[in-house]
Amino acid sequence: MFIIGELINGMYANIGSAIKERNKSEIQKCALEQVACGADALDVNCGPASRQPLVDMPWLVEAIQEVTDKPLCLDSSKPKVIEEGLKAARNKTIINSTTADPEKLEIIIPLAKQYHSKLIGITISAKGIPQNKDQRLELAATIVATCSEKEFSIEDLYLDPIVLPVNVAQAQMNDILESIHEFRIISDPAPKTIVGLSNVSQGAHVRSLINRTFLTMAVAYGLDSAILDPKDKELMDALITAELILNKNIYCDSYLEAYRKK
Amino acid sequence: MFIIGELINGMYANIGSAIKERNKSEIQKCALEQVACGADALDVNCGPASRQPLVDMPWLVEAIQEVTDKPLCLDSSKPKVIEEGLKAARNKTIINSTTADPEKLEIIIPLAKQYHSKLIGITISAKGIPQNKDQRLELAATIVATCSEKEFSIEDLYLDPIVLPVNVAQAQMNDILESIHEFRIISDPAPKTIVGLSNVSQGAHVRSLINRTFLTMAVAYGLDSAILDPKDKELMDALITAELILNKNIYCDSYLEAYRKK
Repeated sequence: MFIIGELINGMYANIGSAIKERNKSEIQKCALEQVACGADALDVNCGPASRQPLVDMPWLVEAIQEVTDKPLCLDSSKPKVIEEGLKAARNKTIINSTTADPEKLEIIIPLAKQYHSKLIGITISAKGIPQNKDQRLELAATIVATCSEKEFSIEDLYLDPIVLPVNVAQAQMNDILESIHEFRIISDPAPKTIVGLSNVSQGAHVRSLINRTFLTMAVAYGLDSAILDPKDKELMDALITAELILNKNIYCDSYLEAYRKK
Repeated sequence: MFIIGELINGMYANIGSAIKERNKSEIQKCALEQVACGADALDVNCGPASRQPLVDMPWLVEAIQEVTDKPLCLDSSKPKVIEEGLKAARNKTIINSTTADPEKLEIIIPLAKQYHSKLIGITISAKGIPQNKDQRLELAATIVATCSEKEFSIEDLYLDPIVLPVNVAQAQMNDILESIHEFRIISDPAPKTIVGLSNVSQGAHVRSLINRTFLTMAVAYGLDSAILDPKDKELMDALITAELILNKNIYCDSYLEAYRKK
């Protein structure tokens, strides 16, 4: 599992203030903590309150890559903000994200190619959030086809079925899980799959339990990557154990510690 | 999920002594505790040390059904022991279990029919434990075919892929999970699926975490029933949440408490 730490996001109070006050050490502390807990990459999001995201994004990128060379997942709905991040990045990058809308794909895919970035494609469009598995597959196929047309390597594409909160879209959870499995058979070589995990428990009372249960089920369905809170120890324990059961880590009595030392 | 409590088993010291000393109240306490924690049925096993299982089994059955009318899962490799349990039972029963061996099926299926009992069929045979999914499916097909021949209702059949300990058979875990899914498409109407959960963590250090992670994944693969420790609260929380995600319980903020009050 490729783990992307979600905590460098301006919507969290500590990060929001750190961005505003140009408090680099707070950002760097958050980066290093996530890496220490097992993050393979770090999401970077200025947050909704950022008044100058075109400046904040490269500042965040610079701050983070002073302390780690982990890949950065540049998270914005605005292509120009992503581009400012790409320009500043020396670390490897992942663009988070494009939708399935032709006009968005037209801008984002060339950007990913130009900067040798991986790309997350979310199965939504201007028509809204898909209501079932077939609509998810249709949007996924659009993203894959456009990437192929533009000669963007499908192996560098992560498809996100868009995880909805269980308290508002309970009937869609099974479709979301099955989409993870089916996205992988859209093309050969297969696209990878990713989820923004925390969304599943948005507004729920027992968030951590719902997050780790959904993640464990998604691992059973073949999930490749997740954007999540790596500081949630129980979540990471569940993830490590799910991958152990699928024979992705070798069993030893202290497999949790062994994984973390890796 | 149909939950069968595993704790009335002579291999546990408290139950072993209670059987030996004919301490009915210890057995009854264990029965009621499991029911209070969510058990839908109770496994009944005299344990390997029982010198007179033909007497111990009906004694256990009598003791338990004095305090609960939950179904009893009569657990023995000896058909005669199961039969003594069936004779004593007023509660509904589940025979645990038959193998795929013709001579065993020849005895156990008629017994299940005679006593209107459900039946667990484990996919092992005199040749030993299956080494992969195909061997499991072959044994499952033998059990299903023999039940059909003998006009035993397939809807009353629970197929068990035989869960092996992750520390000795890690490479088989994925096959075991996929078997759960594939057993259900062997016939229409479908047989049900069941696992003896605790086996997955036999000999491992972090047993509860491995148990609940495997169970969550098995739920994702469509598992119908499990023999487990219902007093493991974290296990039950994971199970309730996995079923919530699959839309089998309705979401409310206090869904864990709501499930338990049911």
